[in-house]
Order: sequence, then structure tokens, then C-alpha cells
Amino acid sequence: MEIENLLIVGLGLLGGSVALAARERGIARHIVAHARPGRDHEQARADGLIDAWSHDLAGEAARADFILIAQPVDSIVRILPTILAAASEGALVTDVGSTKATIVEKAGAVATKAHFVGSHPMAGSHLTGWKNGRANLFQGATTYVTPTESTCMDATGRVTRFWQSLGSRPVLVDPVRHDHLCALVSHVPHLVAVALMELLGESCEDPHFLRVISGPGLRDTTRIAMGSPDVWQEICHHNSKEISVKLHQLAEICHQLADKVGKGDESLRATLGEASRIRSLLEKD
Amino acid sequence: MEIENLLIVGLGLLGGSVALAARERGIARHIVAHARPGRDHEQARADGLIDAWSHDLAGEAARADFILIAQPVDSIVRILPTILAAASEGALVTDVGSTKATIVEKAGAVATKAHFVGSHPMAGSHLTGWKNGRANLFQGATTYVTPTESTCMDATGRVTRFWQSLGSRPVLVDPVRHDHLCALVSHVPHLVAVALMELLGESCEDPHFLRVISGPGLRDTTRIAMGSPDVWQEICHHNSKEISVKLHQLAEICHQLADKVGKGDESLRATLGEASRIRSLLEKD
Repeated sequence: MEIENLLIVGLGLLGGSVALAARERGIARHIVAHARPGRDHEQARADGLIDAWSHDLAGEAARADFILIAQPVDSIVRILPTILAAASEGALVTDVGSTKATIVEKAGAVATKAHFVGSHPMAGSHLTGWKNGRANLFQGATTYVTPTESTCMDATGRVTRFWQSLGSRPVLVDPVRHDHLCALVSHVPHLVAVALMELLGESCEDPHFLRVISGPGLRDTTRIAMGSPDVWQEICHHNSKEISVKLHQLAEICHQLADKVGKGDESLRATLGEASRIRSLLEKD
Repeated sequence: MEIENLLIVGLGLLGGSVALAARERGIARHIVAHARPGRDHEQARADGLIDAWSHDLAGEAARADFILIAQPVDSIVRILPTILAAASEGALVTDVGSTKATIVEKAGAVATKAHFVGSHPMAGSHLTGWKNGRANLFQGATTYVTPTESTCMDATGRVTRFWQSLGSRPVLVDPVRHDHLCALVSHVPHLVAVALMELLGESCEDPHFLRVISGPGLRDTTRIAMGSPDVWQEICHHNSKEISVKLHQLAEICHQLADKVGKGDESLRATLGEASRIRSLLEKD
């Protein structure tokens, strides 16, 4: 995997981690970061994380052979047309958006000489900013790559190898199925953690006392609720139907479980056993 | 804190960790473990974890000045009468049961020369058995100590110091309030993790594929679902009312959240922000 000019649009936790990993693994000869108007990436340049930064999105897009848009979904949707219109012949454009159907649909509607293939690395942190980036952030993490029927196979292959070369494990699924799967394994679990925080809030117990009495179970279960409200509102917006349906389904499961507990239903034992069995299957090697 | 004869009834993960920590910190001169009929603790004795083991529960209880019942709730309720009836004048009896109202009520109904004070260390693992025990298992963990109005203050003080001397942080609450708080910070979060596993099960996706595509968020959120189904059935049984009420409440919160997501309700942003704020307050120093 060799990139001549890598453009990173959005030098945050993910963008910064890609830059670090690309440097460490010699994946890109030249790394440029786009900076929004009124901001700069001078310190990242001085630190050697990137070679240059620029406000000229279209100009940089035209010079790059690989463009990574590492921003939240709304921003990706907003700047995709500019990037795709400016990108040069054969250049590759990908992103890190947590939902894929809207983004891929948007990309398909823009005339371009470049190739767009959606991506979604399942890596992150509740921390933000390139200073919290880690070269090994993608190591062992699944990265969805979401080609459509009209995506050229060579472009899909190169984007897949890009994520592989950063240490992650690409999984190819179509964009709509991606959103279905992520509702299941990421978006609904996030909102369930949010719901648990609402339950604590409704209890009127002092949060500082709750901190003292809570064990690692509660903290692990709800850590993801610390994620950025802005980012998660966008995810909910762009995957609203899948999330809404599955969260209603989860709520019904909770009602049924509550009934079983309340009535001392003997089938509870089997339910707990089956949950334990399924969860064990999710353990990584 | 000095114990002459410490009797541990139930040499599992918690009992084994207490033995290790008591050894390491010189808390007990002599450690004896009770073994159920047909089983022995010869290897634990040979390894130096305990000084002796015995099948004679009443006899060992009579000789001990501090008795820890480290078993699931049902077993504690079953053997408490034998232990309290046999325990000597002034001896202290405590337990590790995850619910407290039933256990403390049972203890109060038995004539004894000893003192019973309920305990619940918020420490554990999905691993079991004394071989998985760790001397630092209780380090920094909250331990509930649950005296009632009729508990002698000196006994409460000694049980409190016992848990302190193992490295944990005792919090005194009455048994009924304990069960209310644990429903909130432990039992309902557990059942929510179980519900998420049911949701995955209902999706009919291959669990091995789900393992590949799931990120650390799902695994952290649902790790507790791997807990012992037997232990959790007992917890649900002994705290059924609190759990049932709060799990129904959680289900309603999920329905409301699902509606907000489905309708693109603008208040979702505030809900996500408030959840993030409350969760941040739960972070330990």
C-alpha cells in the first residue's frame, strides 16, 4: 500500500490516528490535513504528524490520490460534493462515518472522476482531538467497507487494503445492511446506556453517591454514554428508522424480562443462560 | 484488625480472594474453609491459601471468631440458621450476598450468641473458583455493610474495619435501601445487558459474524451478561419487586427514546447531553 498524497479532512481522534499509523507504517509519502476556516493545524505540522495543512479544500482534493474524510456524518454529507467534484482522475475518496446509507447515496449523486467507497472503522474513544490519537487505534478493529453494485472493484480493493495496512480488519457489506448491523451492535447499545443514565437521573439519587456505590459493571455497561451528544444525534438522525424499530423491540424485551422477574417465572433461568451463551460467543480471541 | 480464627464458608472467587488478601495483609492468624459434603479443599490447603478445611460446619462455626459466608444468596439463607445457632458468644458473622433484605431478615429470626452484620462487596468477575481469586480483588471496591436498628454498633464497626482492611471502601446503608440501590446500579444494568443479548438472538444474525463486526462498545456494555445464570436468578428472586419496577421504568424510557429518534425530536440532543453529563459524574478518580 503506497499513497503519494494523503489528504485527511478532519484531524480529530480518528484522522489523527490515521496520520500516526500511516507515518509509522510508511503508508503515505505526504500527509496533508484540511483545516476549517479560522483554524490551523500548525502544531500537528510542527510535531511531524502531518507534512502540511491548508484551508483550500478543493485545491488539496485535486492534488491528493487518497482522501479520507474523518468527520461526523453531517459534515461528511455537506462536504462530499466539493471533494468529489474536485478530486482528480482515479483518486480514492473514503470516510469514517458511523452511518453509511445516506453518505453513499449522496456520493452516488455527484459527478466525479474519482472513486468513492464508504468506510466505517469500529474504533474510537470518548476522547476527542488528534492529540488523543494512537497509531494502534485501528489494530484488530473491524472496519466496514461499503461498496455498492456500481463501485469499481479495484477501488473497493484499494480502500480495503488501506484499512488493512493500518492494522484493522475490513468487512465488506452493502451500505443499507451496514446501517442495520450497526443499529444492532452499536447504536441501540449506545441508547440503552443513555436510557440507564436517564433511569439514574429519575431516581433522584445524588450522582456523587452513585459514583461511590457503583461497581465496574455499571461503569462498563454505560461508558459509551459519554460519547459526544452531537455525534450521536447525527447518527440517530441518519439511522433513525433502524434504531427506532430495534430500540422499541429492546424495550419490549425489557418489559417481558421485568414481568418474568416480577412473577418469579421459571423460564428466567433459561433466558439468563441463553444471554450468557450468546455473550460468550462475542468474546474476541 | 486481628482475627484469631477466620472461617470462610464457600471457597469460591470471593472466598478465595478474601483468604488471599487476609494472608497477604496479616488479618487472620488461622484460616479455615468449610467444604461441602463430598468435596474437599485439600489443594487450597496444600497451596497455603488456607490452614485447614472441614465438613463440620457447626463445629467450625463454634471455633471461629469471624465467619464469612461467601456463597450465593439462596445458600446463605439456607445455612445461616446452622451457623448462627452454633457460633460462639461475641463472634461476628457476615456474608457477601448480592441482596440483603431477605438475608438480614432471616438472620434476625435466629436466636444466636453471635452478631450478624450483612455485607456485599461490589467486586467480582465472570470467572469463578478460588483459583481465579486475587488478593487485590477488593482494592478500591465499594462494600455495602447493612446493619439494622438492632445491630450492636461495635459489631458494625468490626465488620466495617474487616472490609477496610481488605482494601475496600465500606458504605453503611440499611438492607432495604441496599436492595433499592443495587437494583439501580447493578441488577437492572445486568438485565439490560441480558435484553441486548436477546435482541441479538432475535436478529437471527450469526453470532460468529456478530463477534467479528462488534466493537469494544458492545462488548463492554454487555460483558456482565456472562455472569452466572444461577447466581443471577437468585438475585432476581430475592430482589424481584425493586428489579421489576425499575426494569419496567427503563423499558418505558427506551420506548420514549425510540420515539424521539423515530420522529427526529429535537429534545434528543439534550437527552444525550444529560446522559453524558451524568455518566461522567460516575467516573472514579
